[in-house]
Amino acid sequence: MSTSVSPLAPVHVPDLPAIPGVRLATAAAGIRYAEHTDVLLALFEPGTTVGGVFTRSKCPSAPVEWCRAHLKKSKPRALVVNSGNANAFTGKNGRDACKFTAQIAAGAAGCKPDQVFLASTGVIGEPLKAEAFDGVMEGMVARARTGDFLGAARAIMTTDTFAKVATATTKIGKAMVTINGIAKGAGMIAPDMGTMLSFIFTDAAIPRSALQTLLKEEVADTYNAVTIDGDTSTSDTLMIFATGKAGESPRISRASDPRLKDFRKALHSVLADLSEQIARDGEGARKLVEIVVEGAVSKTSARRIAMSIANSPLVKTAIAGEDANWGRVVMAVGKAGEPADRDRLSIWFGGIRVAHKGARDPAYDEATVSAAMKKPEISVKVALGMGKGRDRVLTCDLTKEYVAINGDYRS
Amino acid sequence: MSTSVSPLAPVHVPDLPAIPGVRLATAAAGIRYAEHTDVLLALFEPGTTVGGVFTRSKCPSAPVEWCRAHLKKSKPRALVVNSGNANAFTGKNGRDACKFTAQIAAGAAGCKPDQVFLASTGVIGEPLKAEAFDGVMEGMVARARTGDFLGAARAIMTTDTFAKVATATTKIGKAMVTINGIAKGAGMIAPDMGTMLSFIFTDAAIPRSALQTLLKEEVADTYNAVTIDGDTSTSDTLMIFATGKAGESPRISRASDPRLKDFRKALHSVLADLSEQIARDGEGARKLVEIVVEGAVSKTSARRIAMSIANSPLVKTAIAGEDANWGRVVMAVGKAGEPADRDRLSIWFGGIRVAHKGARDPAYDEATVSAAMKKPEISVKVALGMGKGRDRVLTCDLTKEYVAINGDYRS
Repeated sequence: MSTSVSPLAPVHVPDLPAIPGVRLATAAAGIRYAEHTDVLLALFEPGTTVGGVFTRSKCPSAPVEWCRAHLKKSKPRALVVNSGNANAFTGKNGRDACKFTAQIAAGAAGCKPDQVFLASTGVIGEPLKAEAFDGVMEGMVARARTGDFLGAARAIMTTDTFAKVATATTKIGKAMVTINGIAKGAGMIAPDMGTMLSFIFTDAAIPRSALQTLLKEEVADTYNAVTIDGDTSTSDTLMIFATGKAGESPRISRASDPRLKDFRKALHSVLADLSEQIARDGEGARKLVEIVVEGAVSKTSARRIAMSIANSPLVKTAIAGEDANWGRVVMAVGKAGEPADRDRLSIWFGGIRVAHKGARDPAYDEATVSAAMKKPEISVKVALGMGKGRDRVLTCDLTKEYVAINGDYRS
Repeated sequence: MSTSVSPLAPVHVPDLPAIPGVRLATAAAGIRYAEHTDVLLALFEPGTTVGGVFTRSKCPSAPVEWCRAHLKKSKPRALVVNSGNANAFTGKNGRDACKFTAQIAAGAAGCKPDQVFLASTGVIGEPLKAEAFDGVMEGMVARARTGDFLGAARAIMTTDTFAKVATATTKIGKAMVTINGIAKGAGMIAPDMGTMLSFIFTDAAIPRSALQTLLKEEVADTYNAVTIDGDTSTSDTLMIFATGKAGESPRISRASDPRLKDFRKALHSVLADLSEQIARDGEGARKLVEIVVEGAVSKTSARRIAMSIANSPLVKTAIAGEDANWGRVVMAVGKAGEPADRDRLSIWFGGIRVAHKGARDPAYDEATVSAAMKKPEISVKVALGMGKGRDRVLTCDLTKEYVAINGDYRS
């Protein structure tokens, strides 16, 4: 557990209103750490729909496989999330642990096991002792209340230095709806596995397939545009639960329904807010870094180049050192393998153009640029001059603390 | 400049014999650092052939473009290499600097500018003041002697902590031939750009096209199987010069000539030796790490998975922390996007199996594994159980020193 909060933590933490149809409870089951809550239970009223996107890892965790298997057919009634153990690479034991957890949650909540969704974060490869949930599940069901989303966000933290919550209200037709989200970030400490988990709750009435489409579309430029170290977790999970309890909800059938325009915007803002908070809490991060690539041959090409820059250890260490080292940005553009022409390339740090048309900017002034690099939020912009493709990704710097956090000997 | 030699430096430095037809000289031209040699001149007798492979970067340095343009038509007579400035991302000035350097070298050596090959390593984006070569070129030509390959290797160092040389002798038909190689590694220090340069010299008589084919084929499992941080330089250059001066050389026309079998082996050993030395001198490296992937669906797939492991910051920091964190290896296998089945996966650290068939090895013993992780050379083996594809790459660990070296503010 990290004790000092990231200097990039949001100053303002919003109050999250209750979501009709969602009740929450947390408990300390002693999965790994004795001193704090490590289980979250969310209970949903009948009629709730669910959407989910998961890690693209070829070696996903057991809970990811569980959720994928139940996503299309299930009418969700409960979500159980634990921190401290990722239940990944745990073989048959992992599958059994999922089944057992779903069974005891179903028993306590009065539903079927396949109506229970699961997520785990923490150490990888250690068998998850799901019996620990047995002692706390009944009590959690009894305690479950609408409301405490901040407590829920705290229960799923591992090495996050702050709890991540976001909220938005919007309208679908005449219905006022609320969207609340919680997330745990890419904080890691040996031997814990960095795992992104995020859960969105709304009282909107949206059928499963439309909810799934909305989530997939809005994740592309939010969660999928954030990288801490390019290491994709076995457990990445983002789910949305829609209870349909908002009053006067119109009947929606497709994600393209024009009445969802504002909801889509609000969902995007919640996802963008939470995913930015994850970048702000990258291990050892001292700078929030925005990479903007313009003038690529396509958006896909711009994304690949932006990710090449965002994942370059040389670019990230330079930013940690407050060095506007655009030579390393050129290197990262060049290695991306995407269409680029050195002699058309321009680069900005913090809004100041440092390189133009394939060479150092004639107006380059070291002092001005140095001052810009001292800020906690750094924007790096690259204009390729090849086409109209544009993209933006968020990352953080690479500091000695990252190495310390991830290189400390496993205790 | 780093002052302490890498703990992974080779204990034995071989004596390199002279190569008939190659003369060498070095000089201190004051390109960036005043106190040491920073220019290497190699002169070749008429009849020398050349092969070269270069960075795949879309933003290559000016000398890389110069060499590519002249590789097929040129009869090489000279090679000029400087450290201190990479002449990359320098626009028209960069092209002019190449032309000027080739002209003064040609004038001094008595050949044409397009018979001069060029390579530069050092800071990127700073104009290279090629006039500095003007004062030293005549003297170098006068001083050039067969022999001092170690001095040549020293002149092209930037932040390398030791000079990298290798040698082999072999036979082509009845001809005894020698292969000498020098390299500079992936050492970097702000604001220097990491740049791999390597030059191989031999007295073998091999025509250009066969030499080029041999080099391309043998680089695949040597230089291209080494990664320090996944950041591809704008300037990577590997060239081979064959003078044909070895006595009794048979007439060879194709790379597939069976009489080249031993030469190919010897060339491979020199390339493998030098590329391993580059991994041993990665910035901040304290561990030489070999990644072996077996049982992939193809060699290409095995290479991608091995590179995903070798470039994972989480795997590399774990090894720096002497932690056999196979969970992170699973993560890196999973994110590679190649065919893999979690439940068939086995993983070894230092020859000890730690994971088997998708879960922790039942015989896992923390103390035994910990002892293996304390060694300076660590082997990580992954068996996928999918097919017969196998590959091996070399890398090093990721330490706080890497971040310090690359994150220090540009002075």
